Amino acid sequence: MEQKKTITPGESNVSRRDILKGAGLVAAGGTFIAAGAVTLAGMAEADKGAKGPVYPWPYRKINPRKAAEIAYNNWYRNFCSFAAASGIIIPERRLVGKPWTSYPLMSLKFGEGGVEGWGTLCGTLLGGSVAISLAAGHEGKPMINDLMQWYSETMQPVFEPENPRARFKSRTVSDSPLCHISVGKWMKAEGKSLGSPERRDRCARLTASVSFQIAVMLNDWHDGKYKRSYTGRQSDFGITTQNNCTDCHGSDVPPRIDG
Amino acid sequence: MEQKKTITPGESNVSRRDILKGAGLVAAGGTFIAAGAVTLAGMAEADKGAKGPVYPWPYRKINPRKAAEIAYNNWYRNFCSFAAASGIIIPERRLVGKPWTSYPLMSLKFGEGGVEGWGTLCGTLLGGSVAISLAAGHEGKPMINDLMQWYSETMQPVFEPENPRARFKSRTVSDSPLCHISVGKWMKAEGKSLGSPERRDRCARLTASVSFQIAVMLNDWHDGKYKRSYTGRQSDFGITTQNNCTDCHGSDVPPRIDG
Repeated sequence: MEQKKTITPGESNVSRRDILKGAGLVAAGGTFIAAGAVTLAGMAEADKGAKGPVYPWPYRKINPRKAAEIAYNNWYRNFCSFAAASGIIIPERRLVGKPWTSYPLMSLKFGEGGVEGWGTLCGTLLGGSVAISLAAGHEGKPMINDLMQWYSETMQPVFEPENPRARFKSRTVSDSPLCHISVGKWMKAEGKSLGSPERRDRCARLTASVSFQIAVMLNDWHDGKYKRSYTGRQSDFGITTQNNCTDCHGSDVPPRIDG
Repeated sequence: MEQKKTITPGESNVSRRDILKGAGLVAAGGTFIAAGAVTLAGMAEADKGAKGPVYPWPYRKINPRKAAEIAYNNWYRNFCSFAAASGIIIPERRLVGKPWTSYPLMSLKFGEGGVEGWGTLCGTLLGGSVAISLAAGHEGKPMINDLMQWYSETMQPVFEPENPRARFKSRTVSDSPLCHISVGKWMKAEGKSLGSPERRDRCARLTASVSFQIAVMLNDWHDGKYKRSYTGRQSDFGITTQNNCTDCHGSDVPPRIDG
């Protein structure tokens, strides 16, 4: 079997050995073994003519205030997820050009309202995390964790536009990266509906706040000055979690399953 | 002012008029007005040399079973979000080539565990929604809604690999697109921990199930046969929501805010 020739990385920063390990083809001692015909067929299909692009992409430092202004304005075009990513990607298109110009920002629009209005992950964190990943690759992981924590623990929105499209008085702490909870706590504090100009501008400003924060983090990372701050560990809970158990469970937190 | 020359669409499927409306430059009657200096500066910054790529991308029908197999195997390389998208994008790279070959799948890896383990949006739905968007553009919106509903209401995982890497007996209905709830309900039913081979294979199979479902939907859409099924309306609730209020709120659902 010509496994060595037919199985190649689909992405440039995945080592050949990682892929073989992932496919169950490398035993602990380094001996090649086949995990099964379907696995082999799947891998051949996965990688035949399917080599991906270089990744991550060259990042040049940008002005966080400019990133925020782009994001603020773009919220009014295509909402939060598109706009948060645009605050980083559009300046990089101008400063670096390819491959940033190849990225279809519109493919992130679906993140609006926590995915097409379902209220799950705040779209700013979806689009924003893609932008971090494009710039920093696997080194973006601590930044995404920090962004999730900063988003959840900070009085939002931080950003204030010079010429706001609506005015409001409330800033709120979401204690959650979920759209439903984040926007719900703000709506309750401000007493404004989802369709109100004030709620819309709150989300546009939050989007700008996220792009600003990402630009600050990526600039620090670019200069070798970035220090991670998030210290949460999934293993402490035994389940994927946002660490705010009592928000949904009250004091009746289910026991962990260590099966 | 040369507004007409300096403000151009950043994405090809956004009309010039939409952008001007978004920037507050078109009044209801069609007269050009400036919303403010910062807004104008922001738009100029946003679009200077920043034209995006063609979008959406040409889609060719793929075998849903092949999509599922690719996704299943790729879960063991880079987890759910990367893998769900790969089930669609890798076949399109082979069948269509550019621009699919330009898409950096690794930029979706962060979706694992509901975004780096935070338990929010199931990563299969993040990566899967990107793939739908790339293929179908704004016509993907009903498919993403249907995917979210199908994911939440179906006994999962649907997909059964020919040569599974682990065996388990439970399938569960999540009633939610959130990772924490989806994986938590399965872990409780099966009595297995997050780190167990069974939980890992459950998520790999769920990823394959999502890629399978997306391929079926996109193939139908390609043939003009796709019919949307999701009928939920955010406006019924007055907030972005997954429509399963009592899961978190019990019977004490907060009143809607109509501000």
